[in-house]
Amino acid sequence: MAELTGKTVAFLLTDGFEDSELTSPWEAVTAAGADAVLVSPGTGEVSGKNGHSQSVDVVAAEANAANYDALVLPGGVVNADHLRMDTDAVAFTKAFFSQHKPVGVICHGAWILADADVLGGRTITSYPSLRADLRNAGATWVDEEVVVDQGMVSSRTPDDLPAFNDKLVEEIGEGQHSGQTP
Amino acid sequence: MAELTGKTVAFLLTDGFEDSELTSPWEAVTAAGADAVLVSPGTGEVSGKNGHSQSVDVVAAEANAANYDALVLPGGVVNADHLRMDTDAVAFTKAFFSQHKPVGVICHGAWILADADVLGGRTITSYPSLRADLRNAGATWVDEEVVVDQGMVSSRTPDDLPAFNDKLVEEIGEGQHSGQTP
Repeated sequence: MAELTGKTVAFLLTDGFEDSELTSPWEAVTAAGADAVLVSPGTGEVSGKNGHSQSVDVVAAEANAANYDALVLPGGVVNADHLRMDTDAVAFTKAFFSQHKPVGVICHGAWILADADVLGGRTITSYPSLRADLRNAGATWVDEEVVVDQGMVSSRTPDDLPAFNDKLVEEIGEGQHSGQTP
Repeated sequence: MAELTGKTVAFLLTDGFEDSELTSPWEAVTAAGADAVLVSPGTGEVSGKNGHSQSVDVVAAEANAANYDALVLPGGVVNADHLRMDTDAVAFTKAFFSQHKPVGVICHGAWILADADVLGGRTITSYPSLRADLRNAGATWVDEEVVVDQGMVSSRTPDDLPAFNDKLVEEIGEGQHSGQTP
């Protein structure tokens, strides 16, 4: 497993996230030595659909992608539906692509990538309901456990988390990817 | 108000719908004299996010658009997210466009129109989170209480229901619209 000591990973989400899609990658990157930071549009705590609550570390409006080495977007239909309407969250997401930094996205988390307009020519997987949306946003959508495309790591559901976490840690360890662009 | 006696309106939805977006248009079209029929991918009952339950009248796999004069697609993020993955529901929806029949769609209900590929060149409104998805599917997306485009009636949220119901009944009363096509 890659060593992530000295790297900081931002997790961007709001209420209604799929609990394991926050907690499992969080454990994976911190176990590999990274610091992890929870970014959200609001202050206080965020609550998952299955009961996990966690404190917000940085408000999206004040978050600067330059301070982080990678971004993770957990799923959960309500989380993803609300997050994409926050213009600060969209701008924060897009900045990771502009800075060629790794992005991990799982399940419904990929919706915000359509709003950030970063999917042209990219290959991605997601929860199957997003298929038409991601294709219409310019992506090639595939039904695979994990897809790695130039530093963007994507998976479909919590069942894919072991494969997702492995590739996420690997891509963050590699650092910036020149093909990871908006 | 238009008289809908002799017409039959299909409501297509599954669990997690926005209760009032089923019950309010249902009351409006039946008060105007139409029969209303609940179509869903599964059998038994469907439950709304706020507690309304109602029996399924016709399973989507056995529903034929030729038997109905119009279609209504209620919202609710979970309902809309799941409904669009059912290929029978997508085909049933698309058939109303092929048959030039009125379609009412509100809130998150519009997602299935991206899967049915019927939005090219059309003007629509919806819950704001769908904006990028509907634009990427070929629509002109606007932020208005109600939009009428060639027999397709769309609104944003339950607050828009009075205006939505008025236009829905009016369009169903007018019958087929030649510009309502896939």
